[in-house]
Amino acid sequence: MVTINLIGSGNVATHLARAFKNKADIFAVNPHTFEGFCPDADFAIIAVTDNAIREVAAKMPASESIVAHTSGSTPASILSFRGNKYGVFYPLQTFSKARELNYKEIPFFIEACDKDTESKLMRLASIVSENVSVADSEKRKALHVASVFACNFANYLWNVADNILKENGLDFNMIRPLLKETLEKTNYLPPALAQTGPAIRKDTGTMASHLDFLSGNIEWSELYRMISSCIISNSKSK
Amino acid sequence: MVTINLIGSGNVATHLARAFKNKADIFAVNPHTFEGFCPDADFAIIAVTDNAIREVAAKMPASESIVAHTSGSTPASILSFRGNKYGVFYPLQTFSKARELNYKEIPFFIEACDKDTESKLMRLASIVSENVSVADSEKRKALHVASVFACNFANYLWNVADNILKENGLDFNMIRPLLKETLEKTNYLPPALAQTGPAIRKDTGTMASHLDFLSGNIEWSELYRMISSCIISNSKSK
Repeated sequence: MVTINLIGSGNVATHLARAFKNKADIFAVNPHTFEGFCPDADFAIIAVTDNAIREVAAKMPASESIVAHTSGSTPASILSFRGNKYGVFYPLQTFSKARELNYKEIPFFIEACDKDTESKLMRLASIVSENVSVADSEKRKALHVASVFACNFANYLWNVADNILKENGLDFNMIRPLLKETLEKTNYLPPALAQTGPAIRKDTGTMASHLDFLSGNIEWSELYRMISSCIISNSKSK
Repeated sequence: MVTINLIGSGNVATHLARAFKNKADIFAVNPHTFEGFCPDADFAIIAVTDNAIREVAAKMPASESIVAHTSGSTPASILSFRGNKYGVFYPLQTFSKARELNYKEIPFFIEACDKDTESKLMRLASIVSENVSVADSEKRKALHVASVFACNFANYLWNVADNILKENGLDFNMIRPLLKETLEKTNYLPPALAQTGPAIRKDTGTMASHLDFLSGNIEWSELYRMISSCIISNSKSK
């Protein structure tokens, strides 16, 4: 069985430990003390926040492991000082500890210092996922930035919607069929063609009445104004 | 069988016609010429853009029908000049003509000038949907504004993501498992607790590198900056 030092205790580390359960020998390693570190393991996966990768890699005990981080937006080369077996092991998903995930579906993107290391990291990812590809730092950053818009920012808009509903004695469940259809529609229409709502209709009366409704909350008004104007100018340029 | 003048030819009118197919006698009415109008029908549903409701209602031939519009953000009272049987028949969904929908799941929100008209509009909605409630103009506007954030604006962010991916030779399909999980997660965690990404981690290095990546596109940079700062200040206030 493949052996992995899994360094970190956040959402990604937690989910990688679950993903590899019974499929690899996992050494759960504390990123501060390196307690639990096995110098003979095949891999050392550094699953810590981007800002901490370099420091953790620098403090990591000497070993022959292939060293990889899990960050979308950090170049593989940040690990080059560790020797000649390093790379990136990037699972593209939103990880919350409370969630059970189907790891087979999660796309993994691999980058490595050389072909041999790349194929070893590819094989490692293939143990858990059916969706493994190579992506250099630039492509991986594009994937990460796109994911921030598509997932993190969309979730934030749902949070705004949730708060608007609560403030008016309404429930998020009321808009679930809408959310479901909004997402399902993208399987049939690209988002540019799936766009609906007052902005794409240039329905200025409704937009004004919504801004009036939101006038007590500067943040929500500003978001409404800005995203509406993006939708309008985007439709004009077609 | 109940009889309905369905006035309009946009997405909502198209879907209402499909929803009531074989369940009501539908008269498809041109909102400019009123060709097809049946003065004896039980209902006249005005499914036109918000800005046009008043004008269409004013031009509509005399009839004994209950008159209702389908707008989230327009008060019922806009129809009061038509007599004493008017209301709102608001289906909360994103309607694109190309999509097949399960109408049973769509929440309908009803408002009416009196209890009798209200119960008639409720019964009409119940012919197609299992999810019918009463909502006054203020609640309906809250639902509509929340839906604009949750659906229209989220879809626009997916459009941005789609464009970022395309510009980098990548495909929207790569982030579908992420989108699916982002939405599914809200069934278990409120969006405020489901939030992930660089902003909620206050990962300033990653945010700076993303803004650098986006620097060629003012709109995307501004959106990134603004929504990130909303996420950060929202997390601080907890």
